Amino acid sequence: MVGNSLTELDGADLAPLAPQQFLTVSDLTAVRNLTERLAAPLSPEDQTVQSMPDTSPTKWHRAHTTWFFETFLLQPFLDGYTTCNEEFAFLFNSYYEAAGSRHPRGERGLLSRPSAAEIASYREHADAALHELLEGSASERVSELVLLGLHHEQQHQELLCMDALHMLSQHPFRPAYADLHLTDLLSPPRAQKWLEFSGGLQQVGHPNPANDPHDAGLAHDAGLAHNAVDSGLRFFFDNESPQHEVFLHPFEISDRLVTCAEWLEFINDGGYQRGELWMSEGWAQLAVTSQSAPLYWQQSNTGFKVFGLTGNHPLQPQQPVSNITWFEADAFARWSGARLPTEAEWETAAGAPQPGAHLDLQILTPRTASASPDSQQWFGELWQWTESAYRPYPGYRAAVGTLGEYNGKFMINQQVLRGSSFATPPGHARRTYRNFFSPGSSWMFSGLRLARDL
Amino acid sequence: MVGNSLTELDGADLAPLAPQQFLTVSDLTAVRNLTERLAAPLSPEDQTVQSMPDTSPTKWHRAHTTWFFETFLLQPFLDGYTTCNEEFAFLFNSYYEAAGSRHPRGERGLLSRPSAAEIASYREHADAALHELLEGSASERVSELVLLGLHHEQQHQELLCMDALHMLSQHPFRPAYADLHLTDLLSPPRAQKWLEFSGGLQQVGHPNPANDPHDAGLAHDAGLAHNAVDSGLRFFFDNESPQHEVFLHPFEISDRLVTCAEWLEFINDGGYQRGELWMSEGWAQLAVTSQSAPLYWQQSNTGFKVFGLTGNHPLQPQQPVSNITWFEADAFARWSGARLPTEAEWETAAGAPQPGAHLDLQILTPRTASASPDSQQWFGELWQWTESAYRPYPGYRAAVGTLGEYNGKFMINQQVLRGSSFATPPGHARRTYRNFFSPGSSWMFSGLRLARDL
Amino acid sequence: MVGNSLTELDGADLAPLAPQQFLTVSDLTAVRNLTERLAAPLSPEDQTVQSMPDTSPTKWHRAHTTWFFETFLLQPFLDGYTTCNEEFAFLFNSYYEAAGSRHPRGERGLLSRPSAAEIASYREHADAALHELLEGSASERVSELVLLGLHHEQQHQELLCMDALHMLSQHPFRPAYADLHLTDLLSPPRAQKWLEFSGGLQQVGHPNPANDPHDAGLAHDAGLAHNAVDSGLRFFFDNESPQHEVFLHPFEISDRLVTCAEWLEFINDGGYQRGELWMSEGWAQLAVTSQSAPLYWQQSNTGFKVFGLTGNHPLQPQQPVSNITWFEADAFARWSGARLPTEAEWETAAGAPQPGAHLDLQILTPRTASASPDSQQWFGELWQWTESAYRPYPGYRAAVGTLGEYNGKFMINQQVLRGSSFATPPGHARRTYRNFFSPGSSWMFSGLRLARDL
Amino acid sequence: MVGNSLTELDGADLAPLAPQQFLTVSDLTAVRNLTERLAAPLSPEDQTVQSMPDTSPTKWHRAHTTWFFETFLLQPFLDGYTTCNEEFAFLFNSYYEAAGSRHPRGERGLLSRPSAAEIASYREHADAALHELLEGSASERVSELVLLGLHHEQQHQELLCMDALHMLSQHPFRPAYADLHLTDLLSPPRAQKWLEFSGGLQQVGHPNPANDPHDAGLAHDAGLAHNAVDSGLRFFFDNESPQHEVFLHPFEISDRLVTCAEWLEFINDGGYQRGELWMSEGWAQLAVTSQSAPLYWQQSNTGFKVFGLTGNHPLQPQQPVSNITWFEADAFARWSGARLPTEAEWETAAGAPQPGAHLDLQILTPRTASASPDSQQWFGELWQWTESAYRPYPGYRAAVGTLGEYNGKFMINQQVLRGSSFATPPGHARRTYRNFFSPGSSWMFSGLRLARDL
Repeated sequence: MVGNSLTELDGADLAPLAPQQFLTVSDLTAVRNLTERLAAPLSPEDQTVQSMPDTSPTKWHRAHTTWFFETFLLQPFLDGYTTCNEEFAFLFNSYYEAAGSRHPRGERGLLSRPSAAEIASYREHADAALHELLEGSASERVSELVLLGLHHEQQHQELLCMDALHMLSQHPFRPAYADLHLTDLLSPPRAQKWLEFSGGLQQVGHPNPANDPHDAGLAHDAGLAHNAVDSGLRFFFDNESPQHEVFLHPFEISDRLVTCAEWLEFINDGGYQRGELWMSEGWAQLAVTSQSAPLYWQQSNTGFKVFGLTGNHPLQPQQPVSNITWFEADAFARWSGARLPTEAEWETAAGAPQPGAHLDLQILTPRTASASPDSQQWFGELWQWTESAYRPYPGYRAAVGTLGEYNGKFMINQQVLRGSSFATPPGHARRTYRNFFSPGSSWMFSGLRLARDL
Repeated sequence: MVGNSLTELDGADLAPLAPQQFLTVSDLTAVRNLTERLAAPLSPEDQTVQSMPDTSPTKWHRAHTTWFFETFLLQPFLDGYTTCNEEFAFLFNSYYEAAGSRHPRGERGLLSRPSAAEIASYREHADAALHELLEGSASERVSELVLLGLHHEQQHQELLCMDALHMLSQHPFRPAYADLHLTDLLSPPRAQKWLEFSGGLQQVGHPNPANDPHDAGLAHDAGLAHNAVDSGLRFFFDNESPQHEVFLHPFEISDRLVTCAEWLEFINDGGYQRGELWMSEGWAQLAVTSQSAPLYWQQSNTGFKVFGLTGNHPLQPQQPVSNITWFEADAFARWSGARLPTEAEWETAAGAPQPGAHLDLQILTPRTASASPDSQQWFGELWQWTESAYRPYPGYRAAVGTLGEYNGKFMINQQVLRGSSFATPPGHARRTYRNFFSPGSSWMFSGLRLARDL
Repeated sequence: MVGNSLTELDGADLAPLAPQQFLTVSDLTAVRNLTERLAAPLSPEDQTVQSMPDTSPTKWHRAHTTWFFETFLLQPFLDGYTTCNEEFAFLFNSYYEAAGSRHPRGERGLLSRPSAAEIASYREHADAALHELLEGSASERVSELVLLGLHHEQQHQELLCMDALHMLSQHPFRPAYADLHLTDLLSPPRAQKWLEFSGGLQQVGHPNPANDPHDAGLAHDAGLAHNAVDSGLRFFFDNESPQHEVFLHPFEISDRLVTCAEWLEFINDGGYQRGELWMSEGWAQLAVTSQSAPLYWQQSNTGFKVFGLTGNHPLQPQQPVSNITWFEADAFARWSGARLPTEAEWETAAGAPQPGAHLDLQILTPRTASASPDSQQWFGELWQWTESAYRPYPGYRAAVGTLGEYNGKFMINQQVLRGSSFATPPGHARRTYRNFFSPGSSWMFSGLRLARDL
Repeated sequence: MVGNSLTELDGADLAPLAPQQFLTVSDLTAVRNLTERLAAPLSPEDQTVQSMPDTSPTKWHRAHTTWFFETFLLQPFLDGYTTCNEEFAFLFNSYYEAAGSRHPRGERGLLSRPSAAEIASYREHADAALHELLEGSASERVSELVLLGLHHEQQHQELLCMDALHMLSQHPFRPAYADLHLTDLLSPPRAQKWLEFSGGLQQVGHPNPANDPHDAGLAHDAGLAHNAVDSGLRFFFDNESPQHEVFLHPFEISDRLVTCAEWLEFINDGGYQRGELWMSEGWAQLAVTSQSAPLYWQQSNTGFKVFGLTGNHPLQPQQPVSNITWFEADAFARWSGARLPTEAEWETAAGAPQPGAHLDLQILTPRTASASPDSQQWFGELWQWTESAYRPYPGYRAAVGTLGEYNGKFMINQQVLRGSSFATPPGHARRTYRNFFSPGSSWMFSGLRLARDL
C-alpha cells in the first residue's frame, strides 16, 4: 500500500475524560494532547494537503487552535507573553474580521511553512504559557475562556478527523487513517420502533444562569454559565440560548438511525433517479456531480465498498448510513413516507449524552444500534440532520466583540444537525447542541433519524 | 435615447379588478389581457433577451403561462383540444419534471423562435379554447384550475416586470420601461412608530376548508378552498397551509418600511465596509460584487441615481428602499439595533390587503408611507424580507402529482418575504402569502420593515 | 416548424458583382445592400441573440459596419456630418482601443436597443452621407478608405452567416436560414489526385505598390495599393505584406478538399478515440466537449444529419467536410499519413480565384469537387486550415493609428486558413489572403486539403 | 522567518560535469544525485504542495523521472526487474497516453503518499537496477535510452527549480530557496550593441546521423544520433530535426539581454497601460490579472522588490529581466521600436554554449552581461522568447511508439524560447535546442533579446 506506516492509535490515556460528562479547566492537558494524538498517524505530507476549500490541512488545525488560546487568553491575560512568531496571527486566524487581516481560506494548502514539527513547538510554547497562567489563582474569567478554548479545540478535533478522511479519500488508493478493531459491526440490527410525543409547549435551548449573561462580558456572552448544582462552570455556545418556548404538534420519532441496508433499498428503488423525491437544488447538485450513492460509497463487482477512517471495507448493512447531504437525507425521508424531525422535536425526544458514547480511538466508525452504548443512538454515532434551518433563537444576541463572530454570522443557508458522532470528543456533546452545515455538504459524519406527524 | 418609442401605458380598463379583493373565474379575460399589456411597451428584441439565468425573456413568460393552462386545464378537460405547436411543450415547461423533458433554464435567451407575434397567436388560440371550456357548465374542478392558472399568471406578471427591469438595467443606457407619472413621491415622509404585540400562541397560515383537501385531488391539493362566507372559491397556495399554532415572544414592529434616506445613513456610516454587521456569506458576496449600495443605485456627481421601471431618477429620500438582498436587509437591521420580523410576527401584525393597493400602470414605483393607500405599507409597495427561512409548515403536504412541484421543492436555502409590491396584480395578495427568494437575490421588488424584542 | 416564415432569398441583383474579380468604389451600393439582404430572413428576435461570446448578433454586425464607415470616413472627411446617435460609438466599436471605450464583447446579446428597424435607419443615414461624399471629386484617400470599408463589410457578411448558423444551431429545433436549392450535391465525387511541387525559393505575400506604402498614411498602411497594370485600386490587407521569399522543400498537395465520406472513415476507424492522433490540447478539448463528430453533425437512427444554412439534412458523402477545428483537421491528416499544407505551400499551389466561385444566395452550402466552378476547390467552397501559425511576415509593420489594430494584434495563438468559402462575398478573395482562427474554433466555414513531403 | 532552516547548497561535487560540453552515460550518478541535491533544501511539506495546475510538487518530479527510467529502460531491458510499487505507474506517468491511465495533472497536490522519504527509496531501488544494467556490456540501444533518460531528468531539474520558486512565491512570507552568494550583481551593465547579419539561406536545426534515424527504432527516433567527430553519442530531441534551409532577410540582433533598468523605463512610460503595444490576448490577460510588472516584482515603499530562488531582494537594475510572458516580451519589443528574433535568426546568430555557463548551486540567479561567462548571454542566464510559434520543422516526424508523445503533441499555441538559463543543468544546452511555453506563462526563467530588420 502506498503511504505512511500507520501506527496503531493508543486509546489508554483518554481514560480520565471518559467518566465525567462535562469538561473542566483541569482537562486542559488531556484536550491539548488529544489533538496531537489525532494528528500522529498523519505524516508531514498528509498534514499539508487541503483537499477542498471547505477543509483545512491537519497542521493548520493544530496551529489555529493554538492561535485561538493566544489571541483570546494569553495575550490579554498573561503579562509579558510573547508569541513565537508574529506572522502566525496572519496565517492562523480563521475568520475573525475583528482580529485583523488573514490568509485566504481556500489557499491553506499552499502553506508548506511552518512545518508540522514547527507547529509542535508552537503548541508547546503556548501550552507552557497556559500552565503558567493557570498556576496562579486564575480568575473566573480566565477559567471561562480556557473552557471556551477547550470546546473550540474539541470542535477542531472532529474537523481534523472529517478533513483527514476527505483528504485520504482524494488519494487514488484510499489509504486508511487507522486500523479497524471493531468486530461487532456484524452484530444484528435492532428493529426500528417509533417513539410517540404529544407536543404542546416545550422548553427548547440551554438555560442561562441566574444573573444576566449580557452583563458578564466576553466569556459569558459566548455562552459560559454557572451551573448551580455542581458549582462548577457548565459550558454552552451562544447559539443554544436563550431557552424559549416552542409549540409542537404531536409527532413520533424513530428510536434509531437509518442503516446502510435501508439506504440500499432507497438506491435500488431508484432513489437517485426520481426527481419528485428531491428538493430542486439537490436535484441540480446530483446533475452536476453524477452522484448515485453516498459520498464515500464506491460500486464494485462485489457490491458497494465504503471508505472511512478505518479504511475501505465492504458495506456493512447494519451500520448507520454516514456522510450524506441534507438533500439526500430529505429525499430518503420523503421516499420513506416520513420526514426529518425539527430540532425542537429532536431536543424534546433525546435524553442526555451517556458517558462512553464518544470519540474512542479504537473505534472510529459508527456502531449499530445494538452495539451503541446509547442504544437509541442520540449521541456518539452520527450527527443527525433536522428539518430546521439554522437561524437565531428568539431573543438571541451574539457575544460582544471579536468572539461575537464565533457563531452568529453563519446563521443563513445552513441546516441544523443534532446529537454528536463517533468523532466528537468526550465531554463535548449536549442535548441542546446545535451543529450546522450547508445542505449540500457531506464530508461531516452525518446520518439521519426519521420522524412523522401523528 | 436609444430604444423603442415607449407608448404610455393605459391603466383605464384595469378598473374592473380594482374594487374586489379576490380573483374569480370571470376575471380570466382581464388577467390574460394584463399580461399582454405589460409586454406591450417591450419590442420583439426586448422580449427576447435573458439578462441572467434567474430571469426569463418577456416572450417566454407570455408563452409559459399559456402552456400552463394548456397542460393542466385544456388537455385534460377540453375534448379534442389541440395545441398550435407540439414543440412548445418542450420550450415552455418551466420546471415540472413530471411533465417531461424541457429546455434548459439558462438558455432561454437563445430561443429566438417562436417570435413575439407567434406567441400572441398562441395565446389567442388558448384563450379561445378556455372560453369554450368555460361557456358550458364548468365543473368546480375546472373552476379551481382556472383560478390556479390565473394566480400563476399573476405571479408571472410580477416576474415579467422584475425581469424586464433587470434586462433594461443591463443596457448601458438604461432605457425606461414607462414614463413617470407620480408626483407625490415628494410628499413628506411619515415619522416611524413601533407597534407593540404581546405574543403568545398565534394562529399562522391559511385555514383549510372543512372537508379534507387531500381528498379533493389535484386542484385542492394545490391550495384551492371554498370560503363559506362568500360561497365563492377562495384561493391560496399549498405552502400557506396548514394553519397552525406558533408561540411568539413579545415584540414590536415598525409601522412603515425603511426609506432611502435611512439607507443613506447606513451607507454613510460605513454599512457596506463593516464586516461585523454582515452574515459571513453576505460579506463574501460583497467582496465578489464590490457592491456598496443597492442593486439599482448608481453614484453620480450629484448624488445617487436610482433606476426603476419609470427610468433613472435622482434618489428620492422619502421612498422606501427597494431591490435589496436579504443580506443587506439583515445588515441594515443589525446596524439599526433591530432585526427583521419573523414571518409569524409579520402575519400577526399585518392587516388585510386594501383594494387599490396594487399594480397600477400609472405608478410602477413604491410610494411613500404618506402616499400609500395602505398607510402602514403592509401591501402594495414592496415585499418585505423576514427572518424566517422558507420551510414547510408543520403538517405540510405537497399536492399529489405534477402540481406538487409548484412550491414544495424550493423549500431550502430561501428566505420568506411577506406582503406584496407595486407590481403585484390586483387580487393576488393575502395576509398569509409566502413569497421566497435566495438571500443573495435583489432583482425582485424587495424592501424591509424592522422589528425588535420587547 | 417553429419560427419565422423564411422568405426565399433572391439572388438576382447580385449579378453586377459576379463578373469582375476586384471590388471598386462603385460597388458601394451593392455591398451595402447585400448586408441587408443577408439579414432579411432573420426576424428582429433572431437578430438580437448572441449564441456565444465569439459570435455577434446579426443587428450588431449591421450597425458595426456602419460605425466603421462613420468613424474612419464620414467623420474625418465629410464636413458637417453628424451621426444619428452619439451613443452608437460606444455600442458598435468592436475592438479599437484607440477609438475609445466600448461595450463588452460578450454582452452584445444584452443590447435589445437599438431595434433592428432603428439600425436600418442608421444604415440609410450613413449611406446617404457616403453618397454625398463620393458625388464630389473624391480624393484617392477617400477612395482607399471606401474600399477598406467595403472589404471590412464583406468580412462581416461572412461573419453574419457563420454567426447566424451558430445561433440557429443552438435552438433545439434547428430552424433553417434558407431553402436548399442545390440538386447536384449528389453529383459523383471526383477522384483525388496529388499535385507535385519542387519547392525552392518562392515569393509569398502580396506585392506593395512602387511607392513606399508607409508614406501613404492610414489607408495605404492598411494595405491599399495602386496596381500599375489596371490603373485601378487593388486592395489587400496589411497582414498579406510584405511580399518575401520563402524556401520550400519538395511537396505534393491534394487537388480537392477532404469529403464527408472520407471523414466518416476517420470516425469509423476510431479517429476521435485515439489519443496518438491528436495534439495534447485538442485531446483535452475532446474530453471537455465529448465531441465525436464535427460540430454540426448529429447522430440519428438513419446515420448522421448535418446542419447548415439550408437546414438539417442527411449527410452527403461527396460534400466537403465543414465546420471542423484545426485540431480535427490536424488529427485527420495524421491519420491519413499526410499533413496540412503550410500557407506558403498553399499559396504556391493555388491559382487565382475564379469569377462565380463565391457567395450565391441560391447555394449557401459547399459543392462537390465536380460541381465546383473552381474544380480544384481552392476558392468558394470552404476555408482550408494550414499548418502555419498566424504570425507577421518578415518586415511586417502594422498601419499607423487606430487602423493598425485591424489585424496586427491578433497574431498569436491562431492558425491560418487559406482560400475562401461559399459565404465569401464576390470580389473578396485573393490568393494571398490570410484568414485566421483559434485552433479550437469550428463555427466558421472551415475544411481541409491534405499535403505530403516528397 | 517562517520555514525550514535552509541548509546552504554545496556546489563542490558538481565539478565533474562542468568541463565537458556533452552528457555521457557515465554521468548517470551525477545527474541522478543532482536531482536529490536540488530537492534537499525543501522539507517534506514543501515537496508536497502543487501551487498551480501548471506546476508539479517537488517529490512528484523526483518520482516521475524515476518512473521514466523504469518504463523505457528497466522494464524492457533488465530481465527480472520488479518495481517497488506497482501503483506508482498510475501516479507518476505524466502524459503518455500509450503508457496507460494516469492520475490527473491538476491533482498532484493531493498525493500526500508516497512520502518524500519513500520516494528516496524508490529512487535508490531504480538506481541500483540501472547500475546493474550498465555494468554488463550495455548495448548501444541501452546507452541511447540512458542518455534520453538523463536529458529528461535534466529537464525536470529545471522544472523543479521553476516550480519550487512558484510554490514559495505563493506563501505570504516568500521564504527563500537558497542563500544569495553572488556579489557581482552590482557589476556595471555592459552597453548594448547590435550584431548585424545579412540573412540568405541558412541551415537550421540539428543534423541527423548518416544512417536513417527512422530505421533506428525508438531511441533514434527520439533524436539520439552518433556524432562522427567524437565517436560518442551526441544527443538531441526530435523537435530539433531535421536540419533544413530557411531563407532569412537581413537583420540585427542585440548582443545582450534586456535588463531590469530597461524594463523599469517601459513601466514608467506606461507600458502596462497602453493597449496599442499589446497583442489583444495579452491585453485581455492583463485585465484579468491586473498585472503591472513582471510576475515576481512587488511594489514597495522603496521601489520594486524581486523574488527569486535566492529570496526577495531590491531590484538590481543591471540584471536581466526575468519571468516574463511572451506577451510582455512582445509588448516591450514593440515599445522599443524593435521586435523579437525568429528562432532561425537566433540560431544563426548564437555561438555554442560555453562550459561553466550553467546551473551552479552558488548562483541561482541571472548574471549581468559583464559577469556572464558567455558574455553575450546566449546561454546560462535566461531562456529567450522568440517570434516563432512552436511548429514542426519541414519533414519532422515524431518518434514511433510511446516516446513519440515526448514533444510532438505540444506543437500548437506555444512560442519557442531559445538558449538556456541559470537553472539549466550542465551539458543540457545546445544551439539548436527548442524550448516552448504558452505565451501567457511566466513561471519559467524567461527573458528577452531584441532584434530588428536591417
